[in-house]
Amino acid sequence: MAGGLLTDLYELNMTASYLRRGMTGSATFSLFVRRLPADRGFLVAAGLEDCLQFLEDFSFTPQDLDYLRRTQGCGEDTLRAFAALRFTGEVWAVPEGRVVFAGEPLLEVTAPIAEAQLAETMLLNHVTFQTSVATKAARCVLAAGGAELVDFSFRRTQSPGAGLSVARASAIAGFAATSNIEAARRFGLTAAGTMAHSFIEAYGDEEEAFTAFAEDFPGKTTFLVDTYDTERGVRTAIEVARRLRLPGPVGVRLDSGDLARLARSARRLLNEAGLPGARIFASGGLDEYAIAGLVAREAPIDAYGVGTKMGVSADAPSLDSAYKLVGYAGRPVMKLSPGKITTPGAKQVYRAPGGDVLALREEPSRPGHEALLVPVMRAGQRLSGPEPLTEAQQRCRADLAWLPPAVRALRGPAPVPVQISEQLESLQDRLTQELTR
Amino acid sequence: MAGGLLTDLYELNMTASYLRRGMTGSATFSLFVRRLPADRGFLVAAGLEDCLQFLEDFSFTPQDLDYLRRTQGCGEDTLRAFAALRFTGEVWAVPEGRVVFAGEPLLEVTAPIAEAQLAETMLLNHVTFQTSVATKAARCVLAAGGAELVDFSFRRTQSPGAGLSVARASAIAGFAATSNIEAARRFGLTAAGTMAHSFIEAYGDEEEAFTAFAEDFPGKTTFLVDTYDTERGVRTAIEVARRLRLPGPVGVRLDSGDLARLARSARRLLNEAGLPGARIFASGGLDEYAIAGLVAREAPIDAYGVGTKMGVSADAPSLDSAYKLVGYAGRPVMKLSPGKITTPGAKQVYRAPGGDVLALREEPSRPGHEALLVPVMRAGQRLSGPEPLTEAQQRCRADLAWLPPAVRALRGPAPVPVQISEQLESLQDRLTQELTR
Repeated sequence: MAGGLLTDLYELNMTASYLRRGMTGSATFSLFVRRLPADRGFLVAAGLEDCLQFLEDFSFTPQDLDYLRRTQGCGEDTLRAFAALRFTGEVWAVPEGRVVFAGEPLLEVTAPIAEAQLAETMLLNHVTFQTSVATKAARCVLAAGGAELVDFSFRRTQSPGAGLSVARASAIAGFAATSNIEAARRFGLTAAGTMAHSFIEAYGDEEEAFTAFAEDFPGKTTFLVDTYDTERGVRTAIEVARRLRLPGPVGVRLDSGDLARLARSARRLLNEAGLPGARIFASGGLDEYAIAGLVAREAPIDAYGVGTKMGVSADAPSLDSAYKLVGYAGRPVMKLSPGKITTPGAKQVYRAPGGDVLALREEPSRPGHEALLVPVMRAGQRLSGPEPLTEAQQRCRADLAWLPPAVRALRGPAPVPVQISEQLESLQDRLTQELTR
Repeated sequence: MAGGLLTDLYELNMTASYLRRGMTGSATFSLFVRRLPADRGFLVAAGLEDCLQFLEDFSFTPQDLDYLRRTQGCGEDTLRAFAALRFTGEVWAVPEGRVVFAGEPLLEVTAPIAEAQLAETMLLNHVTFQTSVATKAARCVLAAGGAELVDFSFRRTQSPGAGLSVARASAIAGFAATSNIEAARRFGLTAAGTMAHSFIEAYGDEEEAFTAFAEDFPGKTTFLVDTYDTERGVRTAIEVARRLRLPGPVGVRLDSGDLARLARSARRLLNEAGLPGARIFASGGLDEYAIAGLVAREAPIDAYGVGTKMGVSADAPSLDSAYKLVGYAGRPVMKLSPGKITTPGAKQVYRAPGGDVLALREEPSRPGHEALLVPVMRAGQRLSGPEPLTEAQQRCRADLAWLPPAVRALRGPAPVPVQISEQLESLQDRLTQELTR
């Protein structure tokens, strides 16, 4: 699929109209999040890699055009124009893994309006979803205070493709591994996983199941201990580990019940058995709030499996994102719809000790300020190949460390106001006056 | 991709262990939703078609096996066994579009345990997500009371693939069209769409933009009227429609502000202009609650565009679904983990005037009761090809009409208790005693 139909019908309608009328002026669209969801103090940018791949591959296949001919009544002139369409424009973007705030562009596209318009749906889709999940995952990382996190979400993400993106986005945010093997292969991640309750039930006897698993995976044995009774399960795991003299570090996974209490009792049993290095792994409906609660109770947990609630960003499953025309044919534009006013012109975001400043891109750069948006595509070509995921991970780690604690807070974080540059403000005032005249 | 790696690592670990030990006994897994989310009185089953395709296509490619060899230390015996693996089992399922309740199996798989285990992740993924969205969409249909609904979610679904599934699931639930063209092509749906604010801004002048659009799409012109000022936009739309003597029915789309008030004023202006047949289309952050509010205020709206909140099932973005071993090698099994107790044995759900009954599949069928689970796959082969979507749509329409109003309620619906048959109850009691001895 070359992507031509991965869009909304109205994008095609508008594009057809632009092409027919020779409206080939250069348009700039700005992709940003209007307001942050409740309990979100920041966002972690993600999704850019998929956007660039989409733009580079964009075209209509003969099958696409045939479908449009048959069902949408597109004329032959329009279909010929569609057939020739490629993305030839320029993209500036905030690199993946960086922390951003409401109103700051994550991505800006400048291209002939037909091309920039058609890309709207997929660019919004990739950035909105992956940014929401990277942000949720980063909150889990902050809550875990150094304990390891593993993505367990694949079974309940919103489609298999979503599961692949979640594994990648959570890795950017600092997750150590994923249960999702296809994602591990595709993105070079570490795959992690042990056994399910069904394994124990298939054997009927917990000890027999543990013995079989430990024999088959002697170097990486984590026993799931809660199928029938957690403390009994821990004792059985200890017996099996001793009897088989397992070479690698053993571990136990707690998947239900009062995890803090069970972790303490498991730790005591493991210590008493001379296995102080054994890892305790907790899972079962966890999110950043539950992890913070366990950390606050000083539960002796070494690693957390975080699944569904992270993978669907349960308390904020979407963002109030927008892809708005801010300039056309050399002229800045804005809209005045209630609650959806846009700021005109191509932008730059400057980060400085005093806070972020949203400015026009054409303004002179600010000494001592870091520009968040960087050019990533020109004339439809990427300026560099896909970067190793470690780079996004490092940016995320650095930006999370930079965030003030009040902004990082899981509940009621302090809002970060973004200043508007004087030039941008006066342009906005002038256009508002013109449009309301 | 043949699907072998679309799973969690622990499924592969367990499977490797089963295969090595010659554990080829037949296992039955039951896929069900433990508890319904808040404000959900029922579920609309969806996702089965993707499950069947996954099972039919299931295999490991040479690349899959090579990845496992390199990164997971799988031995050659295990890899050979994986290479030979296909799904050869049986599937019973509730057909798509049917209404079900908590605890009722949506799908049951009986197969050699390795095959049934490996499929867990994808079967849960497809059914959990698509059922949550079909349910959300059905609630919008119930709220709209006969007005038409269009899926506008593609730009903010959780991945592009999710967007395709949302278009299909919402069509099952009764949506009339989708903005998503690729989904329209793939599933034979009606594509719908008009223009965006950017179109008007690109022209700078609303009248010029409306004129251009109406000339290019004279048979299906819906004017987006809220870019600057909605009432002014409606007046402009009327002028353009009159001047061009548009042949088709015109429409206006309201996308912001107080939709009920604006719809009334638009309807008045359109009536005064001699265009009583003009359609009023509303969109902008809608869900079943907002639609019900507009219907309660008797807003004269003919159709609703429903986007993000439906497409991510915003207030219930996942379900508490499970895929649990209920039988192995002729023996019923269950687990006792706190809050996650399972009922043993292959099941059937009987629907009768007195309410649903969850029974063992082996029990004699009940006269006058309808069996919800039907066989859909045997020996790894589908019993029939993909059915036309209209069949799922008809089932959904009939089941929604059958639901008592208290169960259909959007807020605080009456819970539907599912009875347990005597045979199932006594089996459950016996196993619990055995396991806790």
